[in-house]
Amino acid sequence: MISKNKAKFIKSLQLKKYRKAEGAFVVEGGKSVLELLKSGFQIREVYVTPSFFDANEALLKQYADRLLIATEKELESAGSLKSNNAALAVASLPAEQPPAFDKRDFLLALDDVRDPGNLGTIVRIADWYGIYQLLCSEETTDAFAPKVVQACMGSLTRVKVSYGNLKSLISSSGLPVYGAVLNGKSVHEEHFAAQGIILMGNESNGISKELLTLVDHPVTIPGLGGAESLNVAVATAVICDNMRRSRNG
Amino acid sequence: MISKNKAKFIKSLQLKKYRKAEGAFVVEGGKSVLELLKSGFQIREVYVTPSFFDANEALLKQYADRLLIATEKELESAGSLKSNNAALAVASLPAEQPPAFDKRDFLLALDDVRDPGNLGTIVRIADWYGIYQLLCSEETTDAFAPKVVQACMGSLTRVKVSYGNLKSLISSSGLPVYGAVLNGKSVHEEHFAAQGIILMGNESNGISKELLTLVDHPVTIPGLGGAESLNVAVATAVICDNMRRSRNG
Repeated sequence: MISKNKAKFIKSLQLKKYRKAEGAFVVEGGKSVLELLKSGFQIREVYVTPSFFDANEALLKQYADRLLIATEKELESAGSLKSNNAALAVASLPAEQPPAFDKRDFLLALDDVRDPGNLGTIVRIADWYGIYQLLCSEETTDAFAPKVVQACMGSLTRVKVSYGNLKSLISSSGLPVYGAVLNGKSVHEEHFAAQGIILMGNESNGISKELLTLVDHPVTIPGLGGAESLNVAVATAVICDNMRRSRNG
Repeated sequence: MISKNKAKFIKSLQLKKYRKAEGAFVVEGGKSVLELLKSGFQIREVYVTPSFFDANEALLKQYADRLLIATEKELESAGSLKSNNAALAVASLPAEQPPAFDKRDFLLALDDVRDPGNLGTIVRIADWYGIYQLLCSEETTDAFAPKVVQACMGSLTRVKVSYGNLKSLISSSGLPVYGAVLNGKSVHEEHFAAQGIILMGNESNGISKELLTLVDHPVTIPGLGGAESLNVAVATAVICDNMRRSRNG
């Protein structure tokens, strides 16, 4: 069972300031909790329904000292999901480390992406395309907010998300920067280098003026139709796909 | 001002059965309403705030016989948006016509896409890539639901969405079918024909067994990482991008 105080604590972690203060975040739903338990995150507490426990006993027994049985109603009332018949876990936020500039591959940088659903989808896209470092501006939405964690579908356990001053992070990397703009070179014609940074801008305003000066390769997704723009997560996927295709071709 | 009865009518159009019964749907927000007014849809009623009227007087005057000034509060209370300081319109649903099989180009077919946000994003992607006919299975979510209309950002005024029995629609088209699956040919290596159908499946289950038998070219988006799948809208964009690139190359 989840005590009243514990439920209050879990609920508080929906807000960034409490996540920072407690150094913890919440993962909800059976699939995401299973991915979490198999990841390197430090697990503090796991709450599961009896049927979820029965279905995953071998794995869950390893967390016996931090495991409690709860009802669906308790999971739903403590968490942010409308329905949750499986599990909820509290894990420690990863320690803040300087971002890793892996010189062998690509990084993704986000300039002020505000929508949690978009950020979650982008983390999942990065994971799909084998990009394991995300650089985010300070204004980008927090990756450990419940809506992001849910949209990620477990990819946060593999993709490292770092926040900081994008201008200095990007400048100091020495990597070529491919920025998504509306009037750049067709991404179909771009030959991507062996390593680099793909820079995506804010949902409404695109890449800020300050960061545009750092873009070595402005790229555009060629469209034929009437839509003014593509959703930022969709555009991220198309550019990552072209990058992988160009590097394999 | 929006009368109580009118607000009730507008609210009722959030449900598919009332949209069908009334032959009408609602568009909310300044940008979407402006796109609607410039489209071929038949406009029944337009509600605008005084400041939105001032900013768009020339266009709005053409609808003087169907135009009413309303407050933000009235727009928000009659509509589904949390905040709307601009406009709301009621338009007639397009007459149901058999889908147009334009033999010069590609069509997109959706097998049971359930999430309104996904459908809206897909309509916008179709519009971006110049695909003007969407074929949807009967189980696919309704394109004129408020959440879809909002995610579309006006693209519904250009992309025609038809519902029906996908199996017979696709079979009778005589077009080659490119279906998104998890173990097909890499979409980077596929040479797309001059015309065809791109078939996307349900969020959880992919393309149904029944429709898989119609797929001539099973294609897969090559991934490197740990994510199990891409969001269906994201995958649609990547496949459309490869189709356009293949046909231009």
